[in-house]
Amino acid sequence: MTLEETIVEVGVRAKAAAADLMSLATRQKDAVLSQVGELLVAEKAFLQEENEKDLAAGREKGLSDAMLDRLALTDSVIESMVKGLKEVIALPDPVGRTLGSVKRPNGLSVGRMCVPLGVIAMIYESRPNVTIDAAALCLKAGNAIILRGGSEAIHSNLALASILRRALEEAEVNPDSVQVIPMIDREAITIMLGLEDSIDLVIPRGGEGLIRFVSKNSSIPVLKHYKGVCHAYIDKDADLAKVAPIVINAKTQRPGVCNALEGILIHEDIVADVLPGLATELAELGVEMRGCSQSLPFSEHIVAASEEDWGTEFLRLCLCVKVVRSFEDAKSYIRKYGSQHTEAIITENYTTAHRFVAEVDASAVVVNASTRFNDGGELGLGAEIGISTTKLHAYGPMGLEELTTKKFVILGDGQIRS
Amino acid sequence: MTLEETIVEVGVRAKAAAADLMSLATRQKDAVLSQVGELLVAEKAFLQEENEKDLAAGREKGLSDAMLDRLALTDSVIESMVKGLKEVIALPDPVGRTLGSVKRPNGLSVGRMCVPLGVIAMIYESRPNVTIDAAALCLKAGNAIILRGGSEAIHSNLALASILRRALEEAEVNPDSVQVIPMIDREAITIMLGLEDSIDLVIPRGGEGLIRFVSKNSSIPVLKHYKGVCHAYIDKDADLAKVAPIVINAKTQRPGVCNALEGILIHEDIVADVLPGLATELAELGVEMRGCSQSLPFSEHIVAASEEDWGTEFLRLCLCVKVVRSFEDAKSYIRKYGSQHTEAIITENYTTAHRFVAEVDASAVVVNASTRFNDGGELGLGAEIGISTTKLHAYGPMGLEELTTKKFVILGDGQIRS
Repeated sequence: MTLEETIVEVGVRAKAAAADLMSLATRQKDAVLSQVGELLVAEKAFLQEENEKDLAAGREKGLSDAMLDRLALTDSVIESMVKGLKEVIALPDPVGRTLGSVKRPNGLSVGRMCVPLGVIAMIYESRPNVTIDAAALCLKAGNAIILRGGSEAIHSNLALASILRRALEEAEVNPDSVQVIPMIDREAITIMLGLEDSIDLVIPRGGEGLIRFVSKNSSIPVLKHYKGVCHAYIDKDADLAKVAPIVINAKTQRPGVCNALEGILIHEDIVADVLPGLATELAELGVEMRGCSQSLPFSEHIVAASEEDWGTEFLRLCLCVKVVRSFEDAKSYIRKYGSQHTEAIITENYTTAHRFVAEVDASAVVVNASTRFNDGGELGLGAEIGISTTKLHAYGPMGLEELTTKKFVILGDGQIRS
Repeated sequence: MTLEETIVEVGVRAKAAAADLMSLATRQKDAVLSQVGELLVAEKAFLQEENEKDLAAGREKGLSDAMLDRLALTDSVIESMVKGLKEVIALPDPVGRTLGSVKRPNGLSVGRMCVPLGVIAMIYESRPNVTIDAAALCLKAGNAIILRGGSEAIHSNLALASILRRALEEAEVNPDSVQVIPMIDREAITIMLGLEDSIDLVIPRGGEGLIRFVSKNSSIPVLKHYKGVCHAYIDKDADLAKVAPIVINAKTQRPGVCNALEGILIHEDIVADVLPGLATELAELGVEMRGCSQSLPFSEHIVAASEEDWGTEFLRLCLCVKVVRSFEDAKSYIRKYGSQHTEAIITENYTTAHRFVAEVDASAVVVNASTRFNDGGELGLGAEIGISTTKLHAYGPMGLEELTTKKFVILGDGQIRS
């Protein structure tokens, strides 16, 4: 078979599996996930052996320590995969839930029932644990999944795929419910992205380059976010006691993630009260600050920002500082430099908070709390498969329910349309 | 300006207008719609004069009577546009509605607020009334809209656009909230479909050719349905008294629309009781029937179907007839030939009905009622902008709420993540 034929065949098999999964009982789905957990533990030696092949190849290719770290299936990574599976098992099954049932004047009963999306393709980079996490969520929501991880993790992913397949077979569920694309050519991705008759949704996770590539080449709907450039606007009516804890948490608790803070906007009326102390605290925590000309006099720790700094996703201990003249100014700045991911305001003023919530366009708007809360677990969705800044279908973290769609269920007793 | 520059400029203006529309008061949006209604009446002579240019060009080009009919802005078409506007005014504004608010253990209040999608591009064929209907719905949901109608309706659409713009100006709303692309080149569509930084959603409406063209060329999410190949499965446990009324209504009440019936599947146990009488009734109503070999002996009105007939969207008084051996057979047939639009079952058996609802994949599944009910108005959504068989974002009729998305609103009093 050619590469194209192989990938097309994967799509056809996934679609057939999806039809079987549609009405699979929750306990059967949970049985698969539980079995995966047991096999991960039982086959740890095998997994780590395969993983070592990827690590060795990575070391030879000169991957950075950070990349090798992400690639490694250590004992604790395996434990966290098992823990993740247990969490997904504990989540309620969204499939079959019917919302908003109404009785129409002609007696028809109309509701919207959560049903699986069908086939989901996940395209991701190094971390092999995504293979298990994503498969578990998609499966619990009744979807078949096609996984295409990074080439540097190919041995690890194929080993994990064999465990997933064994668990499916042992639980007597269609083993094509989870498939891993075994080819490392990028061509394989391009072919997948054209299978709109077999695949319902593509979720890319990784660097902006990969995501733009997927988005550009897909004829299938894509849920994604390119980057997270999150801001906190410190309003003139901010409670000053709340400012430093929120800014420090949002910037430093985990600087490498998409909901970390990348910039603060400070109202000019309170900049003198806020910035000198805040900048000192941030500097002590190792945060580099790049500020507008108006901010510079308030702290020796701030260096002048260049035009490219505004709107940059630093993903490290670096923060932009901008003094604004008004709420409107802050809003315009966010509209220009934000990424529609997470935007926060710190204020005690009711109307300003209300307006910020209504008028700022982001997947999450936050009042008086850290931007780090824009996360499926923190918001009560359970595990998440990613965060969308695409406004269609899901805006923000995507949990189990976002991996379903809603069809209309119309129950009658002979009604015809007049 | 080049064509490309012009279209890009339209997108930029629309995006700016969308920012203004986000938080526009309901009464202001309704004021625009009300004003449009008044201008449609006041400017009827102008509209019909411009429309006559399109009709004359159409006649010269030899358009069919049916096409000229769809193109005409008769008094009654104008009245129905005005009536449609009133209906949209009467619908509740979805923007700002917050759903599923929960209190998290740390005291954060988390809800999901309906917000406008942003900029919607509508690409459609002949009927100029779509210009008003679509603009009204998009605007009420707080979106800016870019309209690109068929070249044969260009004078009518530009006349309607001038009325929309006057109404926006008179109500002091950003006049770029509704823009009509004045170019008739197909190139204009291709350029629009690449403006992913300005446009959030594309909705094509028209023939399958147009929709496939849009889908193939768009880098922006598209909501669409290619066609509606709807079936009714007459189960062995059907109440025979319900069969003919439902089948006749679904096939003949309005055969040219997407939720009309295109095929019936009859369980072999009851085919002898159902088909002879049903086929006679259908034949008397002028319905042509194309059946499988097993169906032919039951009525002289049925001719043998060819392979291409199965799954065809006839859009006229023609119906496929297939005898099936079981519920499973009916399901497989629907999976193979259906279009995920509307699928109905006629049965009194609880378990069979329950399984049909759970296991058949379509934007609407119907028990004991006509397929014609898969319509926004009939399902209680109010006016609809179209029906989606794309599973992402909306599956089925799209009303006002489907023209919005939901962002997370996180309200705290200083929470940080631990």
